[in-house]
Amino acid sequence: MTLLKAAIIGGGNIADNNHIPALKQLSEQVEIVAVCSRDLNKSRALADKHAIAHAFADTAELYRQCAPDLVVICTPNYLHYPQTMEALEQGCHVFCEKPPALAAQNARDMANLATSKGLTLAYNFQLRQTSEWALLMRCKTDGLLGSIYHIKAHFLRRRGIPGWGYFTNKAMQGGGALMDLGVHVLDLALCALDYPTPDQVLGNTYDFIGKAGGKGLMGSWNPATFEVEDASTAYITFPNKASIMLSASFALNTQSDKDRNLEIFGSKGGVKLFPFTLHTELAGELADVQFPYLEETDIQLKNTAAFLDACQGKPSTVCTGEQGAILQEIIERIYQSAER
Amino acid sequence: MTLLKAAIIGGGNIADNNHIPALKQLSEQVEIVAVCSRDLNKSRALADKHAIAHAFADTAELYRQCAPDLVVICTPNYLHYPQTMEALEQGCHVFCEKPPALAAQNARDMANLATSKGLTLAYNFQLRQTSEWALLMRCKTDGLLGSIYHIKAHFLRRRGIPGWGYFTNKAMQGGGALMDLGVHVLDLALCALDYPTPDQVLGNTYDFIGKAGGKGLMGSWNPATFEVEDASTAYITFPNKASIMLSASFALNTQSDKDRNLEIFGSKGGVKLFPFTLHTELAGELADVQFPYLEETDIQLKNTAAFLDACQGKPSTVCTGEQGAILQEIIERIYQSAER
Amino acid sequence: MTLLKAAIIGGGNIADNNHIPALKQLSEQVEIVAVCSRDLNKSRALADKHAIAHAFADTAELYRQCAPDLVVICTPNYLHYPQTMEALEQGCHVFCEKPPALAAQNARDMANLATSKGLTLAYNFQLRQTSEWALLMRCKTDGLLGSIYHIKAHFLRRRGIPGWGYFTNKAMQGGGALMDLGVHVLDLALCALDYPTPDQVLGNTYDFIGKAGGKGLMGSWNPATFEVEDASTAYITFPNKASIMLSASFALNTQSDKDRNLEIFGSKGGVKLFPFTLHTELAGELADVQFPYLEETDIQLKNTAAFLDACQGKPSTVCTGEQGAILQEIIERIYQSAER
Amino acid sequence: MTLLKAAIIGGGNIADNNHIPALKQLSEQVEIVAVCSRDLNKSRALADKHAIAHAFADTAELYRQCAPDLVVICTPNYLHYPQTMEALEQGCHVFCEKPPALAAQNARDMANLATSKGLTLAYNFQLRQTSEWALLMRCKTDGLLGSIYHIKAHFLRRRGIPGWGYFTNKAMQGGGALMDLGVHVLDLALCALDYPTPDQVLGNTYDFIGKAGGKGLMGSWNPATFEVEDASTAYITFPNKASIMLSASFALNTQSDKDRNLEIFGSKGGVKLFPFTLHTELAGELADVQFPYLEETDIQLKNTAAFLDACQGKPSTVCTGEQGAILQEIIERIYQSAER
Amino acid sequence: MTLLKAAIIGGGNIADNNHIPALKQLSEQVEIVAVCSRDLNKSRALADKHAIAHAFADTAELYRQCAPDLVVICTPNYLHYPQTMEALEQGCHVFCEKPPALAAQNARDMANLATSKGLTLAYNFQLRQTSEWALLMRCKTDGLLGSIYHIKAHFLRRRGIPGWGYFTNKAMQGGGALMDLGVHVLDLALCALDYPTPDQVLGNTYDFIGKAGGKGLMGSWNPATFEVEDASTAYITFPNKASIMLSASFALNTQSDKDRNLEIFGSKGGVKLFPFTLHTELAGELADVQFPYLEETDIQLKNTAAFLDACQGKPSTVCTGEQGAILQEIIERIYQSAER
Amino acid sequence: MTLLKAAIIGGGNIADNNHIPALKQLSEQVEIVAVCSRDLNKSRALADKHAIAHAFADTAELYRQCAPDLVVICTPNYLHYPQTMEALEQGCHVFCEKPPALAAQNARDMANLATSKGLTLAYNFQLRQTSEWALLMRCKTDGLLGSIYHIKAHFLRRRGIPGWGYFTNKAMQGGGALMDLGVHVLDLALCALDYPTPDQVLGNTYDFIGKAGGKGLMGSWNPATFEVEDASTAYITFPNKASIMLSASFALNTQSDKDRNLEIFGSKGGVKLFPFTLHTELAGELADVQFPYLEETDIQLKNTAAFLDACQGKPSTVCTGEQGAILQEIIERIYQSAER
Repeated sequence: MTLLKAAIIGGGNIADNNHIPALKQLSEQVEIVAVCSRDLNKSRALADKHAIAHAFADTAELYRQCAPDLVVICTPNYLHYPQTMEALEQGCHVFCEKPPALAAQNARDMANLATSKGLTLAYNFQLRQTSEWALLMRCKTDGLLGSIYHIKAHFLRRRGIPGWGYFTNKAMQGGGALMDLGVHVLDLALCALDYPTPDQVLGNTYDFIGKAGGKGLMGSWNPATFEVEDASTAYITFPNKASIMLSASFALNTQSDKDRNLEIFGSKGGVKLFPFTLHTELAGELADVQFPYLEETDIQLKNTAAFLDACQGKPSTVCTGEQGAILQEIIERIYQSAER
Repeated sequence: MTLLKAAIIGGGNIADNNHIPALKQLSEQVEIVAVCSRDLNKSRALADKHAIAHAFADTAELYRQCAPDLVVICTPNYLHYPQTMEALEQGCHVFCEKPPALAAQNARDMANLATSKGLTLAYNFQLRQTSEWALLMRCKTDGLLGSIYHIKAHFLRRRGIPGWGYFTNKAMQGGGALMDLGVHVLDLALCALDYPTPDQVLGNTYDFIGKAGGKGLMGSWNPATFEVEDASTAYITFPNKASIMLSASFALNTQSDKDRNLEIFGSKGGVKLFPFTLHTELAGELADVQFPYLEETDIQLKNTAAFLDACQGKPSTVCTGEQGAILQEIIERIYQSAER
Repeated sequence: MTLLKAAIIGGGNIADNNHIPALKQLSEQVEIVAVCSRDLNKSRALADKHAIAHAFADTAELYRQCAPDLVVICTPNYLHYPQTMEALEQGCHVFCEKPPALAAQNARDMANLATSKGLTLAYNFQLRQTSEWALLMRCKTDGLLGSIYHIKAHFLRRRGIPGWGYFTNKAMQGGGALMDLGVHVLDLALCALDYPTPDQVLGNTYDFIGKAGGKGLMGSWNPATFEVEDASTAYITFPNKASIMLSASFALNTQSDKDRNLEIFGSKGGVKLFPFTLHTELAGELADVQFPYLEETDIQLKNTAAFLDACQGKPSTVCTGEQGAILQEIIERIYQSAER
Repeated sequence: MTLLKAAIIGGGNIADNNHIPALKQLSEQVEIVAVCSRDLNKSRALADKHAIAHAFADTAELYRQCAPDLVVICTPNYLHYPQTMEALEQGCHVFCEKPPALAAQNARDMANLATSKGLTLAYNFQLRQTSEWALLMRCKTDGLLGSIYHIKAHFLRRRGIPGWGYFTNKAMQGGGALMDLGVHVLDLALCALDYPTPDQVLGNTYDFIGKAGGKGLMGSWNPATFEVEDASTAYITFPNKASIMLSASFALNTQSDKDRNLEIFGSKGGVKLFPFTLHTELAGELADVQFPYLEETDIQLKNTAAFLDACQGKPSTVCTGEQGAILQEIIERIYQSAER
Repeated sequence: MTLLKAAIIGGGNIADNNHIPALKQLSEQVEIVAVCSRDLNKSRALADKHAIAHAFADTAELYRQCAPDLVVICTPNYLHYPQTMEALEQGCHVFCEKPPALAAQNARDMANLATSKGLTLAYNFQLRQTSEWALLMRCKTDGLLGSIYHIKAHFLRRRGIPGWGYFTNKAMQGGGALMDLGVHVLDLALCALDYPTPDQVLGNTYDFIGKAGGKGLMGSWNPATFEVEDASTAYITFPNKASIMLSASFALNTQSDKDRNLEIFGSKGGVKLFPFTLHTELAGELADVQFPYLEETDIQLKNTAAFLDACQGKPSTVCTGEQGAILQEIIERIYQSAER
Repeated sequence: MTLLKAAIIGGGNIADNNHIPALKQLSEQVEIVAVCSRDLNKSRALADKHAIAHAFADTAELYRQCAPDLVVICTPNYLHYPQTMEALEQGCHVFCEKPPALAAQNARDMANLATSKGLTLAYNFQLRQTSEWALLMRCKTDGLLGSIYHIKAHFLRRRGIPGWGYFTNKAMQGGGALMDLGVHVLDLALCALDYPTPDQVLGNTYDFIGKAGGKGLMGSWNPATFEVEDASTAYITFPNKASIMLSASFALNTQSDKDRNLEIFGSKGGVKLFPFTLHTELAGELADVQFPYLEETDIQLKNTAAFLDACQGKPSTVCTGEQGAILQEIIERIYQSAER
């Protein structure tokens, strides 16, 4: 089988530690032919470190010289849209970091272009590859949950405003806790509901702690340049009357330093995802089921493999361009609701 | 001091076990002069048991013969409105069971009539009298919470559809889990926010389990006559951007058989109500504060005493007619939203 | 419906506290017409206490005067056989305390006579009526366990040699821990296997601690008159290759003061009875299922009701005369094996 | 002191990771002069890795060229007998992996030949070297246990059918869970009783799960080629009336993924081995004794050292050829009993 | 046997709930003939309640009319000395509440008078009768502790200043936490050391919290009239170099609301009293021994019985007059040290 | 900025693993120019390992050739005094290991000489740099504790007599558990009280276990050459009536193998140091405050940095020469008291 040629766009940690190692473990299917970062030195250092043939500072040059089959985009959020559009125009499959884009229309355009070009566009929501999520989807398929009608999803940090990167810069990131953390659990919640288009969306954002400053648990942040929400809550309804309650925070006066979970309520059974527990009836009695031997898996490796499956037309669990567009629309409506 | 003359309307458990015993413990302020129940035999038995002078089957008769200063209304929900209006017209203070009424306009009319008559109208939300709630309000007053901007409130039963009474009858109760359980924690959440008028309200109701039947933990229920929601969720926003997430259930595939709690998030501190825990910063470090010696109190006794305080023009923590009208409006808007 | 007439034979604690109260709760089906104890004073006192019409010291007199439909035998073990035979000869259904008899042949004769007379003979193994056992049998019926092939059953006390009664008297009781405690869990194990006739039986009995004396947790015992086994272990196999490991002790150097449990291993699932836990596979993963809301029940009331069902030809979960004969044979073979 | 010359027969994991490292740590007493594996390449690679002078594919060649003082046999079970006999004939002490052999007569012949040759034959049951077992034997010697009369021994895995090696091949391994796991705890139980010859043996074997397939926790196995028992239980009695209850499983619907323990019941005290707890009487009260500071030890190193002690005529705790013959007889009788 | 005639002096709770019920349970040895309280009405009510023949307001009258064999003194601390002296002069054995007196010289005089009269004088330190203390003394006798050389003893309440009685009145009580609580654990510590005369005594008392006021857990106290110490600590040495560290508090910013314990350190073993744990070496390893089945006992009944034993010249575990004198001397020296 | 020149005196573990690595991490302020150990080979090896320019066996030579600005003294206790005096005479700042000296007068002389020379003398009590202690001092400063009036401090090992070094040699170490362990927690206790001069000191030392021998948890020790105390307890009072209870042990029959903690009692709040818990009143209720996110820090690095701050005249938390003199006086008075 011919190897797929892959290029990496973006030279930061997520390229170095997540995407490149995952692709290299899948060397029977794919070969990394180039990396591209605005800073050519950084680009070259990364190529050297991972024994990648080419390094670029300019994507146009990359496409011209290497003609990759697929690109992985791991740049700051504001670049996802233009770089994805360019890659699709160049005939490449695209594996883009989350969130899809800054604006809903952008994500819609990205999905439409991929479809019209017959290319795969996917987003890197790796939590889909946890053993817990795989089990949830199997329980759903096996009918153990019945109809799912309500989901509580949260990704809360107590004082986890990152002390590095652009996380508090609104222009580059598009938002704060919702954009960075909330999207992960919202994507899962939407999967459980078969990714429906939302009916109504109501939400709020807050920035009391971010703007006041204080003790940080993920480094120190500067309250003077804190531009995004430190917390967001939302309620989303769907035409079939299902609903999602969503909470995300960089900073909140809550118990745990990091608390990420979903509760999925169905007519036959309900699940708490971490640790996975199924609440149902069995043999005529109320039963709580635990699964003590779920395996920890390399979720990035599995998600990258799922993307490659999609590129090759196989069934895949990766987040599609279409799903990304729906997700981005919900995010945008939450922010709009918060500004009413 | 002259004793206030009290009459009890409604002869069920809540009269027998809650209101009459509480009033009798407050015998330095109040004397129960009559009970009134549709069934005269029941009425007389109750009067005999508690050594109350008069028993009636007809409220008009009651007012004519006894001229009470105050009445306690502990009848099914659909009678709260007409009986309260009658009592106010008769010049009586009214202590009415929750929820205020079946419709928002009714609760509004009740509040307005009380105001115009210069009488006290109050609702029996006893959770306000727990030591935990008193401590929450003291923390709020002492500035330990800063600005409160988000509240999660839930009152969830796993399989707690009552196997007795009218709880599944929509015409008499007006609703299910939200009307019976959710109102308690919603009232507290509104107190924490100083009982503002809501901005937007979005919600849903469900009845999968109620209609399917199954194992009950509070007796058995009949799925064939189950007319109300077994669960409801809602999101409520306020002009100052604060928000409430509300969940209530008679039946839900969740872990605990009964789980009733609030999380109150403020800019300086956050509180989980049961067991009371304060999450804040102290001496420059993130701190968790517990209060291991909070007393269990007789919350009905305290709430009845608070009502008597209100009748006598003293400061009181009882739920006022005005607050009841705001609460009922929110309930109604949740049900309306669920029917969209 | 005509009430069944019941007579109680034996005037000790188990009559007073277990059987009489249970029968009186079932007063729509049965009426206690007489009690009979060797000591007429005791007999009369018991009759007075429970408002029973007749008291006897002699069973012949009882049958002559009262002609009961059924008798409950709650005398020491060595009387079970003669009194049951007499009652059956008198045409009465018999509800006999456990163990069935001192010898296997006796239990066999009792079963045969009941059969030939067309009467109900049953033994009072109340653990069959626990919610846990009912659930085990439902799991078995629903196929959740597959083929059951091995059972570990134990009823162990650390220092529970009773300081009262005849428990250490071999002639009256027939044995010690196995006869008094082991029979309970052996009966359950046999039920789980559909009460097969055993293939091979191997066992041992011990009396080190009973004969040495020491600290007692159920009163003090006299090592000088200790005649029975303080512990017994056995292994029983069946024609279908299933097997039971049985342990029983009045005294053993083990952790708990009282430890009574069964583990039932099947091809599809395994169960630990107390607290009830099911170990199986679900949705392709190893799963542990707990049932947190099993009810505590009045097991004597349920077992007496089951006996009455049997008397009336209804399906019943009570231990039959035939089962008692199989059980007694196993007990006898364990004691014989221990004496090899 | 002259160094003993050792040869390793078998080139698998247990040679590589256990025996060779242990012997190298004992370099003041012993020198490894050769390794021998059927596959000469494997043999040479192992010799190179551990800096051993010679590598062979043929044992005859090994003996001819190297004339070792002792050999360590770590080949599959079916080779233990012929290779041990050859080694003894060559005048070598033998340290053989467990179990001794496939048949009881073989183990008996091995023991007899060693005795007649005046050589040491020992089996590698390393659990004897745990701190817990050493403490058990000290408690026994100090009289803290009195007479030991019953032992429960189990080595249970929930889904631990190895996904590698020959563990499910009956011809090569001679059996399944009993042969591979049960022997370890049976050896300990026999030690506690001073290794008596058994009186009666009754047992069963099962293969429901192994033949049905399912989720594995030690790799995946092939149910189609599963030829051995996945579980076995047995009861063994001795002339002094002591008894052992034995359970072993590769697969069983039980709670723990791996549960290996012994309970030793004596007239003065009882011990649960892991974690070591002594149940006894002290100062006239029932007492539970724990030993919180037992050391973890390198049990292979200690057992190899014990073998070298035996070779040099010193007191030793290693399992002797004579003990191995008794053990193998019990194993054989369990399998015979299961086939009745 | 002739019954001893007992009189009760003091009509408060401790007479009513502790001493009278205990004496009545010992009716084969003793008969209560009279009660005496300053308030004759109170005295008569108590006599009536317990069916006691005589009631007095004046002790002289009591002695004249009833000539008791023994008296139980349960009046406030300041009356212990004069009433004990009077009783001894009247030829009565005396069972006096703790502490012995307000001053060391008083306690010395009381002991001397009892000795010279040949009468029993004892103090009611009931903790000596707990199962734990009995076991401690047995361990000591059996040599399990070796030489005892250091004891930590504490009786700490977090906010346990009693809201009733005279506990904060220095003139009537003689002191606070040390006098009321510390004496109990000091008495035990002295018992463990065979009640030696102290060598050096150093201590302190504090009253910060008592004088500041705040939240009470045993009722509310008045900081304005708080005259005693709310906490005291001390160090006591003995001629044999043993030492005691003592802490007592009514109020202290510590974790538990009530924490009462002793740690006894000996050369062979150390004991923590509640729950009783022995730390020692066994079979060559460090061992922790627990005694899970110690019985809860009626410690007042046992202590009263011990007093009666002493009166009848039998061996007794009750606190003697001589011991009380040593104890009181230590208390006095702690207070003196605190005032340096 | 010019680098300070540092010399290391003493070539053992604490130089190698603690002081040299800490100084090298502070390379912007300080440069290690020499090491000096009695054994020149050891000295050179250490210098080579850490790339230090000079190695000496003689301190005089060191001072002559290198003229350091500061020296770190990490030799056995008996050398602290002469080597510190020499260093100060040479005009060097001194960072000396704990304890300050063998005698109080020596520590006083060391402090006086440093003062008169205008040099920094400091002792290496690193526990002052734990996050817990920093938080304690912040709580104190913020007034959360009020007046501190009693401290319990202990550093207890169950069987932790070191099996290496000079720890049991009285002439070289000056003492045992108190000198080696007790000083750490005593220094903290004195800090909490602002390092007052003591009023009274009473103490004891014991050596039962050390002289008897037994199981060791930090290697084996030789009871025949055990010259120091294995445990010491003391009580120290101060002019302001505050008091300290101190306990230290190498060996004690207690629960934990290592237990090091302080309880600090103040009028407004009390603190248990590990894990840090504050007991106080908040919002009118008794409150327990925990700080779940305190960081583990490199306490040697922080303490060395604090010493450098002191050398440079900045505020510092290091233990000063003056404090060391007070501490040593208390230690000496405890030993004197124990010998009375």
